[in-house]
Amino acid sequence: MNDTVTPDWIAVDWGTTNLRAWAMRGTRVLDRACSDEGMGSLSQDAFEPALKALVSPWLSHGPVPVIACGMVGSRQGWVEAPYRQVPCAPAESALTRAPASGDLSVHIVSGLSQTTPPDVMRGEETQIAGFLQLNPGWDGVLCLPGTHTKWVHLSAGEVVSFQTFMTGELFALVSGASVLRHSVSGEGWDSDAFEAAVGDTLARPEKLAGRLFGLRAGQLLTGTDPSTARAALSGLLIGAELAAARPYWLGQNMAILGTGTQACAYRDALAPQGVSCLMVDTERATLAGLTAARRLLKETT
Amino acid sequence: MNDTVTPDWIAVDWGTTNLRAWAMRGTRVLDRACSDEGMGSLSQDAFEPALKALVSPWLSHGPVPVIACGMVGSRQGWVEAPYRQVPCAPAESALTRAPASGDLSVHIVSGLSQTTPPDVMRGEETQIAGFLQLNPGWDGVLCLPGTHTKWVHLSAGEVVSFQTFMTGELFALVSGASVLRHSVSGEGWDSDAFEAAVGDTLARPEKLAGRLFGLRAGQLLTGTDPSTARAALSGLLIGAELAAARPYWLGQNMAILGTGTQACAYRDALAPQGVSCLMVDTERATLAGLTAARRLLKETT
Repeated sequence: MNDTVTPDWIAVDWGTTNLRAWAMRGTRVLDRACSDEGMGSLSQDAFEPALKALVSPWLSHGPVPVIACGMVGSRQGWVEAPYRQVPCAPAESALTRAPASGDLSVHIVSGLSQTTPPDVMRGEETQIAGFLQLNPGWDGVLCLPGTHTKWVHLSAGEVVSFQTFMTGELFALVSGASVLRHSVSGEGWDSDAFEAAVGDTLARPEKLAGRLFGLRAGQLLTGTDPSTARAALSGLLIGAELAAARPYWLGQNMAILGTGTQACAYRDALAPQGVSCLMVDTERATLAGLTAARRLLKETT
Repeated sequence: MNDTVTPDWIAVDWGTTNLRAWAMRGTRVLDRACSDEGMGSLSQDAFEPALKALVSPWLSHGPVPVIACGMVGSRQGWVEAPYRQVPCAPAESALTRAPASGDLSVHIVSGLSQTTPPDVMRGEETQIAGFLQLNPGWDGVLCLPGTHTKWVHLSAGEVVSFQTFMTGELFALVSGASVLRHSVSGEGWDSDAFEAAVGDTLARPEKLAGRLFGLRAGQLLTGTDPSTARAALSGLLIGAELAAARPYWLGQNMAILGTGTQACAYRDALAPQGVSCLMVDTERATLAGLTAARRLLKETT
């Protein structure tokens, strides 16, 4: 880390498992830092020390404001930042100040909630706000792949509705902790198996429950390659998600947040359905969203 | 344990997580014993000591034959007992002798396999054979709930086809290790929530993936009772299984192996579909199946 970094603010994305920070001067990134001190591993009085341990090299010229998004604002986080209810404009962030000592002034962005059906997000609202900053006037559906993937309907700068799917977490549990762990590799990929599996559960979602153990039996009886089984498992689960999320993507203008393996899997799953997606860099969207929140803070203080 | 027990054979059900043994005289149970030394925790040379530790009090009058079923016969077990392919009569067991010292003569029942779609079972074939001993001439579908629930089509004394569902394992993983663990209780039940959830995924199986995170959000936003969330999660997963297993139960003569909580959940899930099930005691079926295998051994030796 460069010890002459002198940001005028610090951007923070603080999720359940990771803490990411950027030293910012205006909209420019001067430096980056990250640690595994996510919200899930911290008691309430451990947030300030964890943040200081990461960003103190950037504070040599005195305190600077910190804008944070993510699970840090949950009830189990540093301070609860109340949800804002959709429909609402994600860019009009609500900020909650976290209790901290003199050289830190930390503001946490509120998450969003939806009453019917019940749903919540924390962190993604900032990425959505950033996406809208980068793509002004964009209407359509934004998919944010992750441990808990979000599908978000955007119209006229507002989040109209959204839905969360646990597909990423299910894939990790089933491939890593169920009997399928013996038959599914930790890496490797088979595009044909993936696309076939997506097509199967999308066309016949009622077959999903019966397909899972077949991956184990297929490997025992016919020696199915573990990379093929891995891609097929991913395809079955993403296909089931697409079946449930059909109203979100059918005939819609689509964008996917992310450029990594998981985001590309969603893109490849949607392509055979005639849906092409704008792919957006996650870090750019996160920083654009936190920058918008910081602008709001400056205007109101 | 009674140290004057003198069985003329020993029945063993040796699964992945448990080892159960019965001291038998003919068809009569003299004594029972069990341990947690399941196949999953044992290296190949640890099977004989684990069995001896459990049954040695029954061997005071000399060696007696042991008939075992379950994962003990898998490739990772004591000795591999090759699968028999369906269609076949489960009662015509194939037995494989395990390598053991003089005072133990251990025979392991073969599992069953199916080529299309690929599927396997070990242990259930013995319960099915026992069920047919107890219900001679029974034709229909037998459901064997468990970590991996089996649906088995029986006709004229043969297993025609079968299918395995990982529903029990999925429920344990999702309720115990995913984000839903915060919202789902370890016990407690809500029959209405269970039946509503079964009905939902049975009618609209494509909605399953979207319903799971809703259990978490519902608890966060409206304080859904964790017992209700637990029953709803079970209902969503069993409903998805019933949607996939529809050809097995629709208009069929049905029996369920088991009388505990899980077996009753399947019975309650099927009842609103107009399906009534014969409920069968698992231990009786297991012992009847092992007794039939022992008879076969006596005839062939």
